[in-house]
Amino acid sequence: MTASPLAQPALAPQEHQYILTLGCPDSTGIVAKLSGFLAGIGAWITEAHFFSDPESGWFFTRQAVRAEPLEMTREEVVEALRPLVEELGEEGKPVSWRVTDNAVRKKAVILVSKEGHCLQDLLGRVDQNDYPMEVCAVIGNHRNLEPLAAAHGIPFHHVPFPPDAVGKRRAFDEVAELVNAHDPDAVVLARFMQILPPDLCEMWEGRAINIHHSFLPSFMGARPYHQAHQRGVKLIGATCHYATQDLDDGPIIEQDVIRVSHKDTPRDMQREGRDAEKQVLARGLRWHLEDRVQVYGNRTVVFD
Amino acid sequence: MTASPLAQPALAPQEHQYILTLGCPDSTGIVAKLSGFLAGIGAWITEAHFFSDPESGWFFTRQAVRAEPLEMTREEVVEALRPLVEELGEEGKPVSWRVTDNAVRKKAVILVSKEGHCLQDLLGRVDQNDYPMEVCAVIGNHRNLEPLAAAHGIPFHHVPFPPDAVGKRRAFDEVAELVNAHDPDAVVLARFMQILPPDLCEMWEGRAINIHHSFLPSFMGARPYHQAHQRGVKLIGATCHYATQDLDDGPIIEQDVIRVSHKDTPRDMQREGRDAEKQVLARGLRWHLEDRVQVYGNRTVVFD
Amino acid sequence: MTASPLAQPALAPQEHQYILTLGCPDSTGIVAKLSGFLAGIGAWITEAHFFSDPESGWFFTRQAVRAEPLEMTREEVVEALRPLVEELGEEGKPVSWRVTDNAVRKKAVILVSKEGHCLQDLLGRVDQNDYPMEVCAVIGNHRNLEPLAAAHGIPFHHVPFPPDAVGKRRAFDEVAELVNAHDPDAVVLARFMQILPPDLCEMWEGRAINIHHSFLPSFMGARPYHQAHQRGVKLIGATCHYATQDLDDGPIIEQDVIRVSHKDTPRDMQREGRDAEKQVLARGLRWHLEDRVQVYGNRTVVFD
Amino acid sequence: MTASPLAQPALAPQEHQYILTLGCPDSTGIVAKLSGFLAGIGAWITEAHFFSDPESGWFFTRQAVRAEPLEMTREEVVEALRPLVEELGEEGKPVSWRVTDNAVRKKAVILVSKEGHCLQDLLGRVDQNDYPMEVCAVIGNHRNLEPLAAAHGIPFHHVPFPPDAVGKRRAFDEVAELVNAHDPDAVVLARFMQILPPDLCEMWEGRAINIHHSFLPSFMGARPYHQAHQRGVKLIGATCHYATQDLDDGPIIEQDVIRVSHKDTPRDMQREGRDAEKQVLARGLRWHLEDRVQVYGNRTVVFD
Repeated sequence: MTASPLAQPALAPQEHQYILTLGCPDSTGIVAKLSGFLAGIGAWITEAHFFSDPESGWFFTRQAVRAEPLEMTREEVVEALRPLVEELGEEGKPVSWRVTDNAVRKKAVILVSKEGHCLQDLLGRVDQNDYPMEVCAVIGNHRNLEPLAAAHGIPFHHVPFPPDAVGKRRAFDEVAELVNAHDPDAVVLARFMQILPPDLCEMWEGRAINIHHSFLPSFMGARPYHQAHQRGVKLIGATCHYATQDLDDGPIIEQDVIRVSHKDTPRDMQREGRDAEKQVLARGLRWHLEDRVQVYGNRTVVFD
Repeated sequence: MTASPLAQPALAPQEHQYILTLGCPDSTGIVAKLSGFLAGIGAWITEAHFFSDPESGWFFTRQAVRAEPLEMTREEVVEALRPLVEELGEEGKPVSWRVTDNAVRKKAVILVSKEGHCLQDLLGRVDQNDYPMEVCAVIGNHRNLEPLAAAHGIPFHHVPFPPDAVGKRRAFDEVAELVNAHDPDAVVLARFMQILPPDLCEMWEGRAINIHHSFLPSFMGARPYHQAHQRGVKLIGATCHYATQDLDDGPIIEQDVIRVSHKDTPRDMQREGRDAEKQVLARGLRWHLEDRVQVYGNRTVVFD
Repeated sequence: MTASPLAQPALAPQEHQYILTLGCPDSTGIVAKLSGFLAGIGAWITEAHFFSDPESGWFFTRQAVRAEPLEMTREEVVEALRPLVEELGEEGKPVSWRVTDNAVRKKAVILVSKEGHCLQDLLGRVDQNDYPMEVCAVIGNHRNLEPLAAAHGIPFHHVPFPPDAVGKRRAFDEVAELVNAHDPDAVVLARFMQILPPDLCEMWEGRAINIHHSFLPSFMGARPYHQAHQRGVKLIGATCHYATQDLDDGPIIEQDVIRVSHKDTPRDMQREGRDAEKQVLARGLRWHLEDRVQVYGNRTVVFD
Repeated sequence: MTASPLAQPALAPQEHQYILTLGCPDSTGIVAKLSGFLAGIGAWITEAHFFSDPESGWFFTRQAVRAEPLEMTREEVVEALRPLVEELGEEGKPVSWRVTDNAVRKKAVILVSKEGHCLQDLLGRVDQNDYPMEVCAVIGNHRNLEPLAAAHGIPFHHVPFPPDAVGKRRAFDEVAELVNAHDPDAVVLARFMQILPPDLCEMWEGRAINIHHSFLPSFMGARPYHQAHQRGVKLIGATCHYATQDLDDGPIIEQDVIRVSHKDTPRDMQREGRDAEKQVLARGLRWHLEDRVQVYGNRTVVFD
């Protein structure tokens, strides 16, 4: 991957860390076991979050440790941890866990349609050298954002979406192939405006991230700003969520709102709402890329 | 009306004003006519708001003028203005208008159930002598808030609501009689938890103000905090709206939200949400009492 | 302590918990030791927070465990934990720690002057039975809030503050005696408007909590809303902080802001600012009472 | 001016309007005279704001009228209005007024240093074709943002700032010449990091707009995020203001804050604060460009 022609100087470099995330059936002593393990390998914990969900009886944690003094590779940490993780699982309730290295940039493919504000915002953050993401490709069902991707040195693929079902399916297959070529950590639907078919939702489960331009569950479906104007609400919002087969109903990562008034037309709301969309997507996606989000049922734990 | 035993010193007194509000079919020159009228009687305008709704073709205004230098009573202003107002109407589209005097306290009756936080907040604001309202009575379907009303010197009426339809109807009739005895400017449903029957909604149209404990239109109906927890939203809210026959679907006056996380149980949301409920009701009700709200269709103009 | 005559039904009861808070010099393995200890006594952790401050090299934690299944009194937990705590200290850097029982209400004395909005808000929260505080007494340098305290069944002490230094000092001595009689967990300056002398600041270090009506460090000192109006800011705020000898410069617990505009007079700001003051004090004081706040230097860790 | 290579489709076009702004000594009847004039030429007012400042005795208004049905050029409106405006002035208190045409893009020159987030955000808004601005040039005291300007088709001028006073003065003269060549409506200091000399402040009075990375008046001067961290505040902010000779003390147009915690290092605050800086600058600058801001003394009226 070559650097963006628009790359800018970064803030002071972030500390090199390994991030451990884990979800398992809850019981007493899990924290002690994990902490004991980390103390045993001499790890210096810089951030630690825990959450026990009383309803599901499931335990979640995220722990960040300094990589430098550890003198172990990420792979060595994984191998050292494996026996303990196996203890934590139960019949039919496998532990989900991973150890990542924050020096390894996460990979993303961004899907767009005509509106460029979210894409422009994300590419700017990457160029400002302080967003934990490498953009492998942008895929658009229109051509108009190709120059924007090109300016940032990102390959752009144009995949037109015909109105008929067969043509659309073929287009999705092409998109899937283009996406999967990069095995990305995130498939970002940055105002993509096309509904992912169930098989792609499943294939990219926990990786496909959508920005919806309403405060879900209000105003699901099409033209949410017009719905909001019609209803006369005093705040409009945006929601960043994992895409699932249930349209606009996936696990929510982040939401925010902005104030509107009777003076605002649907057009005004569209314009003002863009700021909320950009912010909410940028925050939610960052948390995903920093391994701060874990999904349980239709909800998320966000260790921010 | 005797003063509350808990009355406290007020801030500096507010200026004495007449408030003119008016809604009529839009056309050019309305502002000029109104402004010309006000200039003609020597009025000093301290606040002026206008709004033309392009969809309905309706024009709204609120103008505050200093009462002192005017040397006219409110009634004299009304009579002087009447001929002009008649000009502004159209066949089948009558002008809605009023002139109020901010030195005359607006009257309210407050309906409650068991939860006292909104009542306590409103009574406190009245005692702090800076809320434009006189509370004529509190009506509760339980007795537990009687001491709170009594401490503030407000009559409390206990009207039990039996579970059966006939008993409930009789209870509503009793409530209506108690409310109407005061001909109040506002009937405040401060977490009343009973659904107003259609005839009362109609009778109190534009005066019955409800606080709903969600960010409408999300989570209409019962137990909105449980619904919010179930859906995994990251913000919860409250909505102040006029009560209409369409439950939780009346014109919205004000809304706000507060941030929650995966850690918050429905109980936590209930507790934290109370702050939003109190604030949103207090703000929306204030605007209503200050003649800042006008309803058109299912929406409101709020001149704040 | 008898119940308030205005007490209202509580939400579902909160879980019975012991809360461990601890601050000590940072080193690897602290979390493991603490977690190992808790696992060893069979504790079920329901909430755990950690923070290492890189500048001071100090480690902070707050851990909540279920009391019921533990079959130990709070005192027994303290004794069991003591040896470990002693290990964590260093020469000249003693560990600060405590174990509290959330079933034991924290005690507060509230100091007021003429303005009652913060007092009224706090007493309402206590009556609504969901604020972790028992108010032992209210002390006022004016009499006008006596009826408010009385209505809630709280003893009120009137201590007039004469303008001369000697009289003022005597008044402070009287206040101190009245406060200390209760050995309170919090001395709440709820718009008290008198500057605590250094010896009282020291005596109540970490317990005296003030609400300042500006977004500190902006507009320290007198009449902050007038200062804010003069400067033409677009947001005004409130700050809850520990009172120290450096006026308006103590460790900040919580802050918030509200939007204002050119239309707002200092009087409007005073009125609107009250809502921020109430909220910010109520939040900051709650965190203090729930042992969520730890002070280091002039800053606070808030584990919310 | 050629279009940006990255230009994107706009939202529905905005209505063509003339905007009248005016500030004059207050007296009764001004609104009537203005409204009468507008009614006389058959103007359809779509938005009208008024404000009387009681302290200065000054009156401000902004009125937007539909251009299409008016059948007058902007210049004809100006000439028709002139006699009335002359009536409104007083000895030594000249009226400030203008009539602008929202179809004529306002011109801006943007001054930058190394950090590109504000520039990138503004250029993106212009490309998304919904920001009322044409960027004539970008001037930087470093070269690293040249590719960003170039990608958007904007001329970039590199003016190095030597550390010595004479060299700096020469650099400012060069900047002034480059700026003045465009006679811009706005000189945007988008994290320019150099202090404008008094003569340039005066020359660009009411046009030079700065973004300061703190919630002024807190943390004026250098390294505000470090100051904020040091003080332990719980919110950080950004302030958009007119640049004046009193550094960081000019009339404030817009401010906003974001929440931080003890976990945030100065570096974290820098990163998170960028979002506030971008938003606050974009909002404040938009209002300036839409003629919504009027300055009086050290304060602003913002008719948003």
